[in-house]
Amino acid sequence: MHKIPVGVLGASGYAGRELCTILNGHPHFELAFATANTQRGEHAFLGGREVRFIAPDDAPLRSAELVFSALPHGASAAWVERAQEHGARAIDLSSDLRPGHTSLKVPYGLTEVSRDSLRGAEVIANPGCYPTAILLSLMPLLARELIRPGSAIVVDAASGVTGAGNSPKPELLFAEVTENYRAYSVGNEHRHLPEMRALVQQFNADADLLFTPHLLPVARGILATITVQLTEELPDPLRIWDEHFAGEPFVEITPHLPALRDVVHRNVVRITARKAAGQRVPTLILLSAIDNLVKGAAGQAVQNANVSFGFAEGAGLPR
Amino acid sequence: MHKIPVGVLGASGYAGRELCTILNGHPHFELAFATANTQRGEHAFLGGREVRFIAPDDAPLRSAELVFSALPHGASAAWVERAQEHGARAIDLSSDLRPGHTSLKVPYGLTEVSRDSLRGAEVIANPGCYPTAILLSLMPLLARELIRPGSAIVVDAASGVTGAGNSPKPELLFAEVTENYRAYSVGNEHRHLPEMRALVQQFNADADLLFTPHLLPVARGILATITVQLTEELPDPLRIWDEHFAGEPFVEITPHLPALRDVVHRNVVRITARKAAGQRVPTLILLSAIDNLVKGAAGQAVQNANVSFGFAEGAGLPR
Amino acid sequence: MHKIPVGVLGASGYAGRELCTILNGHPHFELAFATANTQRGEHAFLGGREVRFIAPDDAPLRSAELVFSALPHGASAAWVERAQEHGARAIDLSSDLRPGHTSLKVPYGLTEVSRDSLRGAEVIANPGCYPTAILLSLMPLLARELIRPGSAIVVDAASGVTGAGNSPKPELLFAEVTENYRAYSVGNEHRHLPEMRALVQQFNADADLLFTPHLLPVARGILATITVQLTEELPDPLRIWDEHFAGEPFVEITPHLPALRDVVHRNVVRITARKAAGQRVPTLILLSAIDNLVKGAAGQAVQNANVSFGFAEGAGLPR
Amino acid sequence: MHKIPVGVLGASGYAGRELCTILNGHPHFELAFATANTQRGEHAFLGGREVRFIAPDDAPLRSAELVFSALPHGASAAWVERAQEHGARAIDLSSDLRPGHTSLKVPYGLTEVSRDSLRGAEVIANPGCYPTAILLSLMPLLARELIRPGSAIVVDAASGVTGAGNSPKPELLFAEVTENYRAYSVGNEHRHLPEMRALVQQFNADADLLFTPHLLPVARGILATITVQLTEELPDPLRIWDEHFAGEPFVEITPHLPALRDVVHRNVVRITARKAAGQRVPTLILLSAIDNLVKGAAGQAVQNANVSFGFAEGAGLPR
Repeated sequence: MHKIPVGVLGASGYAGRELCTILNGHPHFELAFATANTQRGEHAFLGGREVRFIAPDDAPLRSAELVFSALPHGASAAWVERAQEHGARAIDLSSDLRPGHTSLKVPYGLTEVSRDSLRGAEVIANPGCYPTAILLSLMPLLARELIRPGSAIVVDAASGVTGAGNSPKPELLFAEVTENYRAYSVGNEHRHLPEMRALVQQFNADADLLFTPHLLPVARGILATITVQLTEELPDPLRIWDEHFAGEPFVEITPHLPALRDVVHRNVVRITARKAAGQRVPTLILLSAIDNLVKGAAGQAVQNANVSFGFAEGAGLPR
Repeated sequence: MHKIPVGVLGASGYAGRELCTILNGHPHFELAFATANTQRGEHAFLGGREVRFIAPDDAPLRSAELVFSALPHGASAAWVERAQEHGARAIDLSSDLRPGHTSLKVPYGLTEVSRDSLRGAEVIANPGCYPTAILLSLMPLLARELIRPGSAIVVDAASGVTGAGNSPKPELLFAEVTENYRAYSVGNEHRHLPEMRALVQQFNADADLLFTPHLLPVARGILATITVQLTEELPDPLRIWDEHFAGEPFVEITPHLPALRDVVHRNVVRITARKAAGQRVPTLILLSAIDNLVKGAAGQAVQNANVSFGFAEGAGLPR
Repeated sequence: MHKIPVGVLGASGYAGRELCTILNGHPHFELAFATANTQRGEHAFLGGREVRFIAPDDAPLRSAELVFSALPHGASAAWVERAQEHGARAIDLSSDLRPGHTSLKVPYGLTEVSRDSLRGAEVIANPGCYPTAILLSLMPLLARELIRPGSAIVVDAASGVTGAGNSPKPELLFAEVTENYRAYSVGNEHRHLPEMRALVQQFNADADLLFTPHLLPVARGILATITVQLTEELPDPLRIWDEHFAGEPFVEITPHLPALRDVVHRNVVRITARKAAGQRVPTLILLSAIDNLVKGAAGQAVQNANVSFGFAEGAGLPR
Repeated sequence: MHKIPVGVLGASGYAGRELCTILNGHPHFELAFATANTQRGEHAFLGGREVRFIAPDDAPLRSAELVFSALPHGASAAWVERAQEHGARAIDLSSDLRPGHTSLKVPYGLTEVSRDSLRGAEVIANPGCYPTAILLSLMPLLARELIRPGSAIVVDAASGVTGAGNSPKPELLFAEVTENYRAYSVGNEHRHLPEMRALVQQFNADADLLFTPHLLPVARGILATITVQLTEELPDPLRIWDEHFAGEPFVEITPHLPALRDVVHRNVVRITARKAAGQRVPTLILLSAIDNLVKGAAGQAVQNANVSFGFAEGAGLPR
């Protein structure tokens, strides 16, 4: 059976490797090439197959019908353009083409939200890992205009270290991370904020966002804890999420508290909502968990590729 | 030199062991006995000395001038009373005698806040670990009435597993906790909430508290991330903390982001405050870190004992 | 397509859960029931499906054509017999029926060694996790009688904590295992020794075994470091392993040093051999890594079931 | 009270920081300067005090009466010489001056073995971390000539990642080390072997050494598992260790199995010995645990400095 040849740019990073792993087991795509800069010439065993990283300049863009870019922010957009010039569709995992980062109107690949705009799309901006966890869990409230005008949505989230990439930095050494925990980008300074704000505005929600990320001593996974004030008391909040995401194969609404363990190595988001007692304003606590490398990066990227090419949306994806 | 004989009830738990460790190196106190229930008869090497756990009923209460109770909530108050009947002062690490849990007016041992009421105190209710981290960081705002009336103070905090004690429960096994992270007691259900509310009310703050704890894959340490709306914009927020805690040996105000690593095995709280950008209401993010077993339990208990007996407040305490 | 109905006894332990996970994705077997004792009535999400644990006494043995027993040692053999009386084939993951533990001649499911005896077998004794890693790596030397007569084979091995099961014991709590490492069963006292000795004798090797296991602060994986003296210097030792295991899909011979990371969640053993410099007797260091729950337990059990029923040996198994 | 001014070269590495931590709490030494290369100009909070790292060329060698060098192997010896030329005593933590690495006869600071040669010594070669754990545990057998002639001493040891230093290397990133375990320098290739061989020869033992180190997912600690064949059966092996190390404050002989947890942050070695059952040659398993940064580096270095200057051997050292 003919498979669609696919290239991965920036394949040696954690997201790039996860892309190769998924693509090597995909029924309709096949890995045509994988580029890496410092690791050019090296091999890795990914998804049951040996992958050889080639230099970016050696990438046979012409041979691919689809290119995923897991290149660093700033460097990615130019390669996406180049891939398109060679006739390939492109999915950009960097922030370069996401809402809030560019004035271009590139379809934003938060699949469950913008599925229609992704069918046949030539280029897709794949969401950040934090925005995926956070925006999906907020969606039922945004769509129903249930967020209290003038309030602040307080998001505290924690991520495993693969979210910081695999460039060797002293603060990411094992001996620095084990038995440790800390916040970073405190004060609303994180690069993922613009795309979250853009989506909140798109739904006309008159609320501020306050986002504080933390670094966990785990390899993978994001848990977001979201405090949101409502326009009214909801007698059975979870019902709204059940309705909103009915039939979605990659969204798990649960009365239990989601844990990283429930979602790692899976292309799902797992969400619950709980009422907060003792508040004068009706308030919910949302908890949302994903694997930052799967639903938060490579998995969602392949999910978007499936939609773009008209394949079954879950083809090749771990559930 | 004469040392004051001290008993520890419930000495085999994590807080009890930390008490023995500190007491075995203390210049003015000496461990007279240590009780344990299921571990009675066993030995442990704590603070450079062998400690033998005796059965609670064998505790020679009469021999102690001071008793620390690290017994479980519910079981502790009766033992504290018994110790007092035998003429000993008592420091209760359980929640039994804390504000919000009893109508008795027992001095609350948040040392930096209530130091005056602790001098010569016959009994002291030692604060919970989360309240220690959270209340100390809020204190400058509470004392200056800078918290916006009608607002909610949103506290997301994460603790190492020693906070859950050392009774073997399946969900605390290594294989369940490693590479995992999850919230618990979501929706304002945590046992530490009443004492936090009591203190906030004591300072006449008209604000709700919303507290969501999380379980970290680390042994020790608490980091609290606190979002608080203000009555006014503060041009240099950290200055308020510097002023409020000037001269306090166990409070570290820092422009850096505190990490668990900075505080474990130390009797300190480490605090910073950052302005949140992009909020229509002036808002601060406070970050506060402690070792849950030291400043959050045994260390603060000994600090309180030092104050009660008139010793140097830092005697025997790790900085 | 008709699938063979399969029961899992002792399904709530780590090996039992891994069995359910694999079976839920198997092309030819389907999970008919899963029993658990203390967790009876509870649910778990395993291999993409909800599994409900039923009480052992409610197990519909009659409905299964194959039964896996992951029951504790001592309790397992009786259930295996019961399953056989009801007409099912049985694979016993306990040590009850392994060589060295019983005088019965039950086929020993070290698949790559005893494949022929497993075809159509009504009952199979599945090997222990340590013996799987250790014996497979020794096999080329045993088969070629290259181990020096009178010598001792020194095996130091380290295992993740799932090897110790999920009954809550104090020494397996996260706070006791993290940042720790220790040996156990030192002095040749481990329960896995008899089956290793039996195999070594079966190959007429005149060598002692000395086995020291250690507990690693990881969830999964075993690495065995084996020092073995030879009858002669081998110019290119790895060639012997390459030859011996040629065509074996689940044995990876590598010039690199195997790491746990290479094998977790996979049904493979990964082996290398290195000459030891500076020894008067020709000596090799073998390194052998497996996932204790997959190739060391559930994966190999399903591999054996595949052989017994005549399916493709790798059906349903993660590589 | 006058304190002896001390300099630390290479102070920003893990061993260098541990030196600063210990020296900042020492009763007779005080830190005069601390050098670092890439971290020059930065500050660290070590042992309760702020330490500022200065550039190596700015080191006021003249101001120090004692210099510790924690510089890399190869670079250290020249600085030790320079320090001596400026009139300071020097303790070299690198391998440059250790037996097997140089023909110079520099006192080897395995304190419990060579204490007499260290009194007043102008320069001391501080042992490697692995040799400290391994040689100390072998000493009673070496001194009594109980090791079987012609045999191989098989040493499998595992170390926390601080043993590999804090230069950022990809393989030391948290996400690469967590849930992983692997051997390295397999085949008798480790840099610590020469000094171990030199000591074994010094005691006229006619035995080979076979040393396989492993990397543990922990920050600190070494556990060595040593298999040694004897000239005769020892009825009560532990008695020999008790005798040999009687009165040694930093050697703990125990009937229990030592764990990393027992020794981290302490300047001790903890040793046990167990008979191996089922061996035709009398064989012992020795287990020896240290903190690689304390007894295995900075702690032993300060212990040696105490001996050199005639202070109480345990002054300033954590037990």
